[in-house]
Amino acid sequence: MNTDIIILGANGRMGKILCQLVKEDKDLTLVGVVSRNTEDLSVKNWGCPVSANLEEALRQVDDTKKVVIIDFSSPANSLNVAHTVAKLGGCLVIGSTGFSNEERAELKELAKKTPIFWSSNMSIGVNALLQNLPGLVKALGSDYDIEIMEIHHNKKKDAPSGTAKMLAECVATAKDINLDEHVVYTREGINNARQKDEIGMQALRGGDVIGVHTVYFLGSGERIEVTHHAHSRETFAQGALRAAKWLIKQKPQTLYCMKDLL
Amino acid sequence: MNTDIIILGANGRMGKILCQLVKEDKDLTLVGVVSRNTEDLSVKNWGCPVSANLEEALRQVDDTKKVVIIDFSSPANSLNVAHTVAKLGGCLVIGSTGFSNEERAELKELAKKTPIFWSSNMSIGVNALLQNLPGLVKALGSDYDIEIMEIHHNKKKDAPSGTAKMLAECVATAKDINLDEHVVYTREGINNARQKDEIGMQALRGGDVIGVHTVYFLGSGERIEVTHHAHSRETFAQGALRAAKWLIKQKPQTLYCMKDLL
Amino acid sequence: MNTDIIILGANGRMGKILCQLVKEDKDLTLVGVVSRNTEDLSVKNWGCPVSANLEEALRQVDDTKKVVIIDFSSPANSLNVAHTVAKLGGCLVIGSTGFSNEERAELKELAKKTPIFWSSNMSIGVNALLQNLPGLVKALGSDYDIEIMEIHHNKKKDAPSGTAKMLAECVATAKDINLDEHVVYTREGINNARQKDEIGMQALRGGDVIGVHTVYFLGSGERIEVTHHAHSRETFAQGALRAAKWLIKQKPQTLYCMKDLL
Amino acid sequence: MNTDIIILGANGRMGKILCQLVKEDKDLTLVGVVSRNTEDLSVKNWGCPVSANLEEALRQVDDTKKVVIIDFSSPANSLNVAHTVAKLGGCLVIGSTGFSNEERAELKELAKKTPIFWSSNMSIGVNALLQNLPGLVKALGSDYDIEIMEIHHNKKKDAPSGTAKMLAECVATAKDINLDEHVVYTREGINNARQKDEIGMQALRGGDVIGVHTVYFLGSGERIEVTHHAHSRETFAQGALRAAKWLIKQKPQTLYCMKDLL
Repeated sequence: MNTDIIILGANGRMGKILCQLVKEDKDLTLVGVVSRNTEDLSVKNWGCPVSANLEEALRQVDDTKKVVIIDFSSPANSLNVAHTVAKLGGCLVIGSTGFSNEERAELKELAKKTPIFWSSNMSIGVNALLQNLPGLVKALGSDYDIEIMEIHHNKKKDAPSGTAKMLAECVATAKDINLDEHVVYTREGINNARQKDEIGMQALRGGDVIGVHTVYFLGSGERIEVTHHAHSRETFAQGALRAAKWLIKQKPQTLYCMKDLL
Repeated sequence: MNTDIIILGANGRMGKILCQLVKEDKDLTLVGVVSRNTEDLSVKNWGCPVSANLEEALRQVDDTKKVVIIDFSSPANSLNVAHTVAKLGGCLVIGSTGFSNEERAELKELAKKTPIFWSSNMSIGVNALLQNLPGLVKALGSDYDIEIMEIHHNKKKDAPSGTAKMLAECVATAKDINLDEHVVYTREGINNARQKDEIGMQALRGGDVIGVHTVYFLGSGERIEVTHHAHSRETFAQGALRAAKWLIKQKPQTLYCMKDLL
Repeated sequence: MNTDIIILGANGRMGKILCQLVKEDKDLTLVGVVSRNTEDLSVKNWGCPVSANLEEALRQVDDTKKVVIIDFSSPANSLNVAHTVAKLGGCLVIGSTGFSNEERAELKELAKKTPIFWSSNMSIGVNALLQNLPGLVKALGSDYDIEIMEIHHNKKKDAPSGTAKMLAECVATAKDINLDEHVVYTREGINNARQKDEIGMQALRGGDVIGVHTVYFLGSGERIEVTHHAHSRETFAQGALRAAKWLIKQKPQTLYCMKDLL
Repeated sequence: MNTDIIILGANGRMGKILCQLVKEDKDLTLVGVVSRNTEDLSVKNWGCPVSANLEEALRQVDDTKKVVIIDFSSPANSLNVAHTVAKLGGCLVIGSTGFSNEERAELKELAKKTPIFWSSNMSIGVNALLQNLPGLVKALGSDYDIEIMEIHHNKKKDAPSGTAKMLAECVATAKDINLDEHVVYTREGINNARQKDEIGMQALRGGDVIGVHTVYFLGSGERIEVTHHAHSRETFAQGALRAAKWLIKQKPQTLYCMKDLL
């Protein structure tokens, strides 16, 4: 089955990669791109209508219900997009990070009206870790201290990263503790030894690092470090396209995530 | 439940660490130590009977069936110990390495009479990895290249390390390939791109590193690195104590190993 | 020349290692140990007077001016010790970490009366880095972002570590910026991109990690990570003994550090 | 001063990045590209003559002596290019890796006739390390064991990498030993402890890793790891353009390298 795709922010960093990969994938058809600057050469070359906004782009497709819109922007913008899609039809794949709990709740409501998929990290590697870290946490037992460290480029605004939060939720659940009660974001000035179930989360920023995440398991006489390095944004784009192919076959129900797909 | 412990070779490197950790563990009671030199101050300080041999030590405990004997010595000595335990009662945790197939068979026979646990690598961390890496290998799929790197002190003679070999066997089995056919120990002078199912194994040596092992999963746009650092020999002692707590609840049956425990 | 040594906190973790290494060093003589519990077997075995406090220990040596006292305790306790040494005579090597600016100023005053040496980290490796990182900072230029991360055991109370602070001071000086104005201890909830000259300092805690420190240099298209791993406390003890041998030949002047020695 | 540039292999991975960066740099002018497929859209868009070979490209420039040719291909091809440039005029920047000693000697001869610059690694980070590692080697002293490890993508044919060789030469020179006599490429089957001045060089291959290099300094009680991560090929392209701007002002003399430039 062939899936129609509209890429938002087509002139942006992720947008360009997504358009390129859609063009190279025989199971996908690029039926529209949305770009602030519709005259930009980088968006005019894709051989499909270029629109200034999503409404305009949706007006040019045959059947809005059979199209998947992909958006990697900001929480606020992705929410606007979700409202539009819920009203006009279509499936929506969101790769934005940094949603507040309120924004996430709003997204969940919209996901009851139209199929919406959201993941802070679309990579196979991160999701394979989310699947297998609980087993490691349980095998090590409660005596192993867990800490999380992440590195991202110097333009990233939110901290810790969405992926770091997912990893923290994953290990906290496996440890059977409440993350919010045990997470520690800084240790400077505390002057106290570590509490037993603390989960430290530390964020480094600098250069153009795409994303490094390490989960530490620190025990007596040994430690294990599990590190994920993202080399390029293609790995996220490819995950988004996989989500698009899966989402087109789903009914609106819940805010879908990688766990539902795998 | 509190478990009674007898430590053999209490004046040796591992013996001292084991005694110290038993004393610090409120779930364990040191009810006897065995040492060649019973006058050694390092063994007289533990506040429990010091014996010259296991028979003597067992005579001083209330109920031999409720005691766990821990032995890190040599295959020949551990076999003698196993015979004594099988005759007089008790559970036995062995951490000796280098058993021949014949010695292992003999140990298996004795394990039918009294609970015996044996592992050549007692670290909880390494065993937790051996249990959970197969799931990661399968979740990532066959497109991820696997490589293994280890670092040990400059006095180690063999390479790669036994633990590196265990990790390699573990991932090769999960990939459903034969390790011997795909392992590569050096790439210098080969002048060819990597073969699809190659598993590279590289050994670094230097300083007094106790043991570092990394398994790499290298994919398109991302990589995962899983590293185990051994900080001290305590980690092997602690694995033995965990085995002791578990073994006291088992019936004689088979030669138990870390896989049974975890 | 043979140097007389008094070890404070001789029944503690560092104290035991220091006593052992002094006994093994033919250029050093253990002339006294100080321990809260003077009946502890671990301190009675060294073949020298055991005292409950430094005054008592100094009363038993031939010439207080020819003795080096070594103290790895806490800032408050080390300051008390420094006052006693300034009054009664002797040289003082301090390995305590976590001094406030006020405590450091007080120490500097006392160092004018009697030779005092202080280092947050006595290892050769860390001091070799302090010597060579400035060159790296300058070669990379101001476009490289610098961040520092450290890992220590779960009993450590202060954060960031003294060594992390030394590394941060070192790179800040090479960058010609004021550390206090640019250091960032947490990024959670800030919701702003990294400022150009920020130096992030993050502390992980867990298990029994002796000490890991990484300095990151994050640039466009690349990054450099310089990591120091301490394997054992012996490396700090050995540095303290080297300082003792050097300090006995110095006059009171300034608060000496590893840079003066190397 | 504005510098004219010809990019060879303009339709290749590095070629595309180089053309893009030249177009974005106001001090450089793209006066020609060479591509096997001259009809490829990716090469026709740069707004300059497209040629099938270097001779043809040089015929279209005003003054061959005032042009810099940039080539990231293979040793054999780069040598051919160097012969052409030596004959027809121009400056040549080579980023190919894996030259044999014979090929390097041939290149050196040609560099006497026309300005030629060659580097296995054009990045600022690697060259900053080459400048500062000797100081670290000397500060640590001869008791620290040195090992080198590198990771590259699964399509790389040569091992160890050119950068790993440069790093090895750098530390060997600082240690005042001959690299060829002390380098060890594999330890499997050797069954002997490490020799004092050995320098181990290990190559891992997999996925699409652009380049990771670690130099280990392994001592008693501690180790230092210095790691360089290349995030993208832009970092090499940018170094090549910096070399081009510098090379146009040089006379033919020796085979220039990054050290001459910095």
